[in-house]
This record gives sequence, structure tokens and C-alpha cells, in this order.
Amino acid sequence: MQVTKVHGCGNDFVVVADPGGTIDVGPGFVRALCDRHRGVGGDGVIRLAPPRDDGSDVFMDYRNADGGVVEMCGNGVRCVATYMLDRGLHHGDVVRVGSRAGTRHVVVTARDERGRVVETRVDMGTPVPTGEVTVRVPTPDGHDVTAVRVTTVSMGNPHAVIEVDDLDKAPVADWGPRIERDPAFEHGTNVEFITVPATDVVRGRIWERGVGETLASGTGASAMAVAAHLLGRAGREVRVEVPGGVLHSEWTADDALFIRGPAVAVFDAELDAGWLGAVDHG
Amino acid sequence: MQVTKVHGCGNDFVVVADPGGTIDVGPGFVRALCDRHRGVGGDGVIRLAPPRDDGSDVFMDYRNADGGVVEMCGNGVRCVATYMLDRGLHHGDVVRVGSRAGTRHVVVTARDERGRVVETRVDMGTPVPTGEVTVRVPTPDGHDVTAVRVTTVSMGNPHAVIEVDDLDKAPVADWGPRIERDPAFEHGTNVEFITVPATDVVRGRIWERGVGETLASGTGASAMAVAAHLLGRAGREVRVEVPGGVLHSEWTADDALFIRGPAVAVFDAELDAGWLGAVDHG
Repeated sequence: MQVTKVHGCGNDFVVVADPGGTIDVGPGFVRALCDRHRGVGGDGVIRLAPPRDDGSDVFMDYRNADGGVVEMCGNGVRCVATYMLDRGLHHGDVVRVGSRAGTRHVVVTARDERGRVVETRVDMGTPVPTGEVTVRVPTPDGHDVTAVRVTTVSMGNPHAVIEVDDLDKAPVADWGPRIERDPAFEHGTNVEFITVPATDVVRGRIWERGVGETLASGTGASAMAVAAHLLGRAGREVRVEVPGGVLHSEWTADDALFIRGPAVAVFDAELDAGWLGAVDHG
Repeated sequence: MQVTKVHGCGNDFVVVADPGGTIDVGPGFVRALCDRHRGVGGDGVIRLAPPRDDGSDVFMDYRNADGGVVEMCGNGVRCVATYMLDRGLHHGDVVRVGSRAGTRHVVVTARDERGRVVETRVDMGTPVPTGEVTVRVPTPDGHDVTAVRVTTVSMGNPHAVIEVDDLDKAPVADWGPRIERDPAFEHGTNVEFITVPATDVVRGRIWERGVGETLASGTGASAMAVAAHLLGRAGREVRVEVPGGVLHSEWTADDALFIRGPAVAVFDAELDAGWLGAVDHG
């Protein structure tokens, strides 16, 4: 069985090509594939199944590293285009990727001198500002409680964005899980900490719901850019600097948000038969 | 360029076959290969070069994830045997693996129903007890300082073993780096925290010098077993339970220490040409 590792800004995925639509990626198998020490390693698994309609070229069946089904993954969908084009499974500069959240058109925006895809852009949909919320969290020394103003945005999934003075010292691991589970958020929330050093630059760190701190997130980068604009700190086109690299966000006049950034293949792997035989596929 | 991922108890390695002895695994390339999000991912890289003498079948050139040369790696050398045998590069049940620390004979102790290697045993050399040391570390609440008795052992590299009451609550991330750099240890030290629930069982957690907390370590498991025996808490044959799995240690009457445990291949990978071209090999 062959798989391919791809990543966008260090947000990495194990791609399982399934042109016959017959491969079962159960939670146990996904967890084994995503295990960074005993498996291939990744933030999630992307099974590429046949398109489900005439309007798409492939169907992206995405699972998080914990095995759970997730409707959409912004960096993942950009990586699917790289995979399809570099491996000759599709041609041109646009790949229409179907998903449980609808079809996304991914456009190639840069190639290397060999013609391989290095950067792609995707329409992340229309951001939905969902208001300001105040949450109570412990002070950094842990001895008191403080009220923090949070800008909330839906990118299909919920985000809570907090502007801080010093990103390096932002209490991501402390406040992240507390805000994620704050009663203000019925289904939990992703949490982003940002600084806005210029009107066209947002720097941020990401606490991903159910995952922890991550190097990059497509919807997280989108939410950071939207919140910075809503706070009056940035324009509609911004460079978003996340720990894993740089993404570019453009919020258009007709209310679409595009994310552009690196999406590269790392390796193709043949899974060892002994390893596969020992995995709990349940 | 092809590589293979192997692991022993979650201690994982990227194997680069170099039968011509011509591949340069510089620090930049090693760091790129070991990167768990943008590369193949691993605790280190094993370049397998031609044997340097008649007494060995292959030479193991081992580099830590940070790019530094390390003389010996107990779990790594066990994985080399799995690699050589499962890929038909050597035959039989013994592989003589040369290294900068001399030649180790690795013996297959279990295969699966397909005949693939799943467990191997290696002679870790003669343990050298280096005495009891008292180090001063902060109390768990951070408000005071306490003296801790440490059993030190050399397995070619230095180890400091501490018996604790509750392994789950052991202050590995707090005390580990402080003891690693304590002036008592001229070249730093690896640090192990253990409990000894029975005379043939040692449970432990490992703080690896220059790395941090790890799932498993061959020399660490050896040092735990030796310290438990020196403390009068265990015999000479013990089951060593580390976070990544189970290793078996036997300290023989003629003063050799054998470690036996899982060593399996996960996948063979073809590195993407675009990825390779973008890597800083320096």
C-alpha cells in the first residue's frame, strides 16, 4: 500500500490514493498512519476518492489524526492540488476538490524550475463575524483571573482571536484549552493569538480545537486576518505569519476569502507489509 | 533517493542506504530528514555504509536529529538488523553492525508469521557504575530546593537514575534539564526516572541529553535496569517498561548487558525531487 506525505507550512498530511473508492480508513488505521514515531506521521489523513459529481475532479475524505471525520481543511485542500498535478493525475493549473463542505477550486500560483507545484491558492468561503466575547482566564502567574476580549469568526468552523502584546510569551498552552472549552462556545472553538505589526502583516499562533498548538491552519490564518481587519488594525490583504511559515490572505470586495501559500510533496511511501499486518484497523 | 523508516519502541530512525559510501549526510540534510512536519521525521538518521573491517557486515553512521554525530545508539543498531534482513541485504539471524563505538552483534529473537523480523537483541557492552551523587533541584511547587540522590551509570554515555514514588507525576521536564546540566556532570548526563514495582520489572521515563523526553532509549533502559539492581531493588534480568513499549534487559554473570525488544520497519520512501532540491544540505 502506497501513501504520500504532503505539507503546507508544516501542516502535514498522509495522502491515501483511492481511485477505486474501496479503501477503509477507520479511526485505528488513521491513528496508526498519523503516529509520528511508529507510523508515517501527520496532522491528518486525506483519502482521495473518485469525484462525487461532474463539478469536481476528486473527492477529499479528510480525517484528523485522532481518526475523526472533518468536513474541510484549508491547507489540506491546497496540498491535494499539488499531489494531483505533480503526479500527473490531473492537468492544468486548477483542481476542483470536492469535500463534505462542498467543492473548492484550488489554483496553482507558483511552480519551481522543474515545473513542480510549490504554492497554491484556495477560496476559503465567506467569513462570518460572530461578535466580540469576553472570557475569564487566569493571569499569567496563575494567582488571579482576568477578562479577555475575544473576536469571534466562523470560517465554517469557530475561531476566537485574541490580540496580545508579545506573541512569544502568549499563554497559548494555558489559555488555549480553557477558551476552547469556555461555556461561551457551544461546540468549543479554535483559538488564535495575534499581533499586528503593520496594516498588511498579522503574526499569530494557533490553538487547534481537539489538537493543541499547531504550526499552521488554513482556517486559523483566515480568522486571524479577518479579526485584524475587524479590529481596525489591518487591511483586507495581509501576510499571515504562523510558526510553520507564511500564508497570504485576501478578503475580496465580494466577501470571499482566499488563502495562498506553500503546498509541497515530501515523499511517496510503500508501507511495510509487516507494519500493515500489525496495525489495528478498527 | 530512497530512505526507510524503522523504529524500536517508538525510538525512530530514517535509514539511508549508502552501499557505495558516497552519500553526504550533513547536519542540514539530517535536520530536514528528521523534521516531523516538513520531512520524514525521526529521532536520528542512520547511514548504512560498507563495512570497514572483516568483522562486520555493515557500518552504522549515526546522527542525532540535531545533525550531530553520535557513536552508538542501542535501539538504532537493533533496527539496522531488521532493515538488513527484511530487505534481503543479509541472511541468517545475526548481523554484525560496525559503528564508531565498535562492532555489535545483533541477534534476531522473534519473527512474524511472514518471517519478518519483529524483535532483536544486542549486547550493549559492560555497564560501569559511576557512583551515587546528590544534586539539588527545586521542589515540585518551585518554592524550595531539595536534595535528590542519583545513581550514575555509564553505558558508554552517562546516565543519572532517580527512583521516584509516582512515575506519572515525576518532574521529568523540570528536573531533567537541570540535572542534565548540573556541574556534577562534566559532559552533561541523560536522566532516567524509575519505579521498581517488582524485582523483575522497572518502569521508567527518559530525559535524553540534548533531546528532551523520549519514548525509548537503549542505553537509558540499560541504565535503569543496572541502577535498579545496584539499589538492591531488582535482579539482573528485568522487564523495562518505557513510554514507547517494553524492552528486556539481561545483565549476565560475565558483566555484559543485553537489551532485547521490538525493531520494525514502517515504510520505504522515495523522497520527492522538489523537496530534495529545496533542502539546505549544509
